[in-house]
Amino acid sequence: MSWQQIAAEKKSRQLDSVPKEWLSSTLPSSETLTIIDFPQTSRVLSPLDLEITESSVATLLSDLASSKYSAVQVTTSFYKRAIIAHQLTNCLTEIFIERALSRAKFLDDHLQTTGQVVGALHGLPISLKDQICIQGIESTIGYVSWIGQFAEKNAVLVDILESLGAVPFVKTNVPQTLMWPETYNNIFGRTTNPYNRSLTSGGSSGGEGALIALRGSPLGVGSDIGGSIRIPSAFCGVYGFRPSSNRIPYAGCVNTLEGEDSILSVLGPLSNSLDGIKSFYKGVLSKEPWHQDSLVVRKRWSEEEYNLIDHGNRAEKLCFAIMWDNGLVAPHPPIRRGLEMTKKALLAAGHQVIDWVPYKQAEIYSTISAIWNAAATEDFETSAAPSGEPVILSMHPDALQEDEDLAFRPSSTGISAFALWQIQKKKRDLRHEHLKHWEETARVTGTGRPVDLIIGPIAPYTAPPHGLNKNGQYTMVWNLLDCPAMVIPVSKVDQAQDVKQPRTEFHSADDKENYELYNPATFENAPISIQLIGRTMEEEAVIAMAEIVDQALKAIKSELN
Amino acid sequence: MSWQQIAAEKKSRQLDSVPKEWLSSTLPSSETLTIIDFPQTSRVLSPLDLEITESSVATLLSDLASSKYSAVQVTTSFYKRAIIAHQLTNCLTEIFIERALSRAKFLDDHLQTTGQVVGALHGLPISLKDQICIQGIESTIGYVSWIGQFAEKNAVLVDILESLGAVPFVKTNVPQTLMWPETYNNIFGRTTNPYNRSLTSGGSSGGEGALIALRGSPLGVGSDIGGSIRIPSAFCGVYGFRPSSNRIPYAGCVNTLEGEDSILSVLGPLSNSLDGIKSFYKGVLSKEPWHQDSLVVRKRWSEEEYNLIDHGNRAEKLCFAIMWDNGLVAPHPPIRRGLEMTKKALLAAGHQVIDWVPYKQAEIYSTISAIWNAAATEDFETSAAPSGEPVILSMHPDALQEDEDLAFRPSSTGISAFALWQIQKKKRDLRHEHLKHWEETARVTGTGRPVDLIIGPIAPYTAPPHGLNKNGQYTMVWNLLDCPAMVIPVSKVDQAQDVKQPRTEFHSADDKENYELYNPATFENAPISIQLIGRTMEEEAVIAMAEIVDQALKAIKSELN
Repeated sequence: MSWQQIAAEKKSRQLDSVPKEWLSSTLPSSETLTIIDFPQTSRVLSPLDLEITESSVATLLSDLASSKYSAVQVTTSFYKRAIIAHQLTNCLTEIFIERALSRAKFLDDHLQTTGQVVGALHGLPISLKDQICIQGIESTIGYVSWIGQFAEKNAVLVDILESLGAVPFVKTNVPQTLMWPETYNNIFGRTTNPYNRSLTSGGSSGGEGALIALRGSPLGVGSDIGGSIRIPSAFCGVYGFRPSSNRIPYAGCVNTLEGEDSILSVLGPLSNSLDGIKSFYKGVLSKEPWHQDSLVVRKRWSEEEYNLIDHGNRAEKLCFAIMWDNGLVAPHPPIRRGLEMTKKALLAAGHQVIDWVPYKQAEIYSTISAIWNAAATEDFETSAAPSGEPVILSMHPDALQEDEDLAFRPSSTGISAFALWQIQKKKRDLRHEHLKHWEETARVTGTGRPVDLIIGPIAPYTAPPHGLNKNGQYTMVWNLLDCPAMVIPVSKVDQAQDVKQPRTEFHSADDKENYELYNPATFENAPISIQLIGRTMEEEAVIAMAEIVDQALKAIKSELN
Repeated sequence: MSWQQIAAEKKSRQLDSVPKEWLSSTLPSSETLTIIDFPQTSRVLSPLDLEITESSVATLLSDLASSKYSAVQVTTSFYKRAIIAHQLTNCLTEIFIERALSRAKFLDDHLQTTGQVVGALHGLPISLKDQICIQGIESTIGYVSWIGQFAEKNAVLVDILESLGAVPFVKTNVPQTLMWPETYNNIFGRTTNPYNRSLTSGGSSGGEGALIALRGSPLGVGSDIGGSIRIPSAFCGVYGFRPSSNRIPYAGCVNTLEGEDSILSVLGPLSNSLDGIKSFYKGVLSKEPWHQDSLVVRKRWSEEEYNLIDHGNRAEKLCFAIMWDNGLVAPHPPIRRGLEMTKKALLAAGHQVIDWVPYKQAEIYSTISAIWNAAATEDFETSAAPSGEPVILSMHPDALQEDEDLAFRPSSTGISAFALWQIQKKKRDLRHEHLKHWEETARVTGTGRPVDLIIGPIAPYTAPPHGLNKNGQYTMVWNLLDCPAMVIPVSKVDQAQDVKQPRTEFHSADDKENYELYNPATFENAPISIQLIGRTMEEEAVIAMAEIVDQALKAIKSELN
């Protein structure tokens, strides 16, 4: 069979796994770009389905624990909505209804028999990025050659989520190789943005972004080596969290660039509220994952750090620093508006806000790129080759096999181990320097502490048209620095407010090109988000400070309304 | 100037830095092999010098805090003894009396003026492996080409130790490249073993091992990427601790194999008692080193973990597992006797002792070797080349430029980054597998927990003759697995007890060769030590369990006397 036939056969197996009665027959035409509210009117979802799927994770967990809803009911409601999301944006890969409902039934029986929940996530459906293995199910990450490789066992994270009572119920789409900030592959095709289907969902956790935005899942797990959780979270307007390396167990997932030990991909949650993010993070750590994944740091959830022991113990005002522009490519007007709203909200809440002075952004960016590129091409070609499928060289709908000179694509030849070590030495030095740069802000904050949290863009634009997400600088620097980073939605592009401003001076040719890309009509309705950046291994404090920022934003928004 | 002249000039600067009145004129002849007790009779040390230098770290800290001794007095006493140790074993590199005594004077003045100590290590002299930079002082690590490179600033650890009140006072000898388990280089020459100068001190922290054994320093800092703290600690009969990666700050040291991010060298303490080890470790963490070194994990000293929260809370008996033999090269009779004594001591103390089943020792060993060898030769040659000095290929006194086919030396050609990634992937898988292997011991311990601590050899022999330390297997596996490992001295080789046993079956040719090496007379008086191995990032528990093992051993030894 040709690789095209193998891919088509797999896609048809996917279609067969969906019950016909869950398919909507009133889908909007492909010319309808904004379909974010379609599920409410789809006729497939009952009022109860809508009530359930529009609840926050905290509410769901409480209503599941009190038996207001059964796990079977909640799982079914989310399945129905996930299938609609899939019809609208093509966000799913694996759908395994029997397995999930049987798990949900077990949880219901357990609760009924014992009066006890199984764990902190009892009955909660969870979607998983395609690479996270579930026993008996494929994880292709968009490689035709990996079709038919059914996982022999669960990833450690899946075992842990199940031990917490969660119900894994779908897997979600990714780009071939995972190393793209958009979502397209030769098996499952392209995932689109539910706020505007002419725009990308982002990637590589793009299926998660689209699915969660449409409330087809209350909580999803993505992975991030250069922005792959944060970019789809931002582009699709959901909360997303990239923890530091080696806190959430990665063992038992399939992956790309395996053995690249210097910049690690990390797993993290996406959800429609911060309580979803916190429930996931605290729940997973409560299971002491270092007993199952040798790379996970033995560090328990710290309630002290969550109570901001290192940031004035919640008794004092915080000092936030905003990075308006990385000095390489200036963000579009909506991104700037999002940052301005955040500044206003934080000042109104009594906090201090100063400007962040970016440090060696170009060098950091080129260093992380060089580490990936040391052997990325060999890695991709080795994975793609067995089926005859070519490695995809562009995410542009009109030019999938042409090299679009995207900066984050690898060079075509690898380097020696010695050359790689020299780059990794540079990486270490940059991390030390950046730490010093951050520590030295204690001189200007007025709190006696260095800046508590950096706030910045996720990209120099909101979700761009397919094939045009070419700039990973705003996320990749934090991967090299291994900083935890939370994405929070702030607003949406509005043609009236986000007008194009005249500019005559540019940082670079890339900056000019990006400026020229902007046109409010193109980006209509795209979510505007911010990124909150904390210190390495300081997840608890970042979650706490994200709650403070989120509440401040909600407070000024309710004032405006 | 030739590299030989440059080296000779540096050596003569070293000699000039020693006050003539501290030199002993009654040195034993070079034929006197055991000189461990010479300092007591050297005539250079006063009764007060002897009292001070034979105190434990805990006693010293208490006597310094109470002003029983001044910091100047303590520093001077250790200097005098360190110089004797150097005359006997050639253990020092840098000697900077003025700087250290001026620091000690500052501490004395501070205590007198304020009534307060500067920190937890107030007034304690500390020796540092040559690679740990002190502003204005060279760090050559035995490369002639690095002579004249005076450090622009302190290593982070030096700043932290000084902020704790410690007094760095000498730097200690290492092998050229640091990647040898013995100590010889073309600048400073060879460090010998104070228990038997025909034997190696071990390496690469061999200067520390010899110095501390002779009580020329109460506390030293070495580094360990494959055994470099543990081997000299074991061979010289002192306590030594190799922590997990990224808990003790390494930033600001010079090093070899820089940029090799997969198996990291770590800094750790050597001392004559466990209280020295604990004081160092707890003290350094109290300064929150993650604010100064971007690689240090944000994890405070945990009193809970020190109280064995994960091991029955000190209320229950522990289960120790002894690795008698790694299945590759069987240990010599004295090593076996050390393990047998330990077993007896632990059983007498009411604990459980089972046999450890080694897991894939050959594969783990070959994987860590392959990661170093990916580019080690290029690294060494790049460092050695500028002076014209050749890279040393053997530690044997008669064959320094011949390749002795020592297993831990790198292959001569490097590999590609892609090939390195495949080996690193293998490393990760081995770590996961070994964790599972350890966890599964919960089935056989009877405590409900997996084995609490593994106890094993540091090498298949006690300190061997110079040039014959060819086997790093017993230490290197724990570096790949990133387990914290503590060395404890148990006894000394005794010709009457440690007779050669007949053996006719061997694991391998290496095993046979090692068997043939043994002869009680050759190893006379060499220290016998054991290695205690815990879980990654579990330093606090390893220190606590080491105290338990050490006390048990002392209890049966005092019974025997």
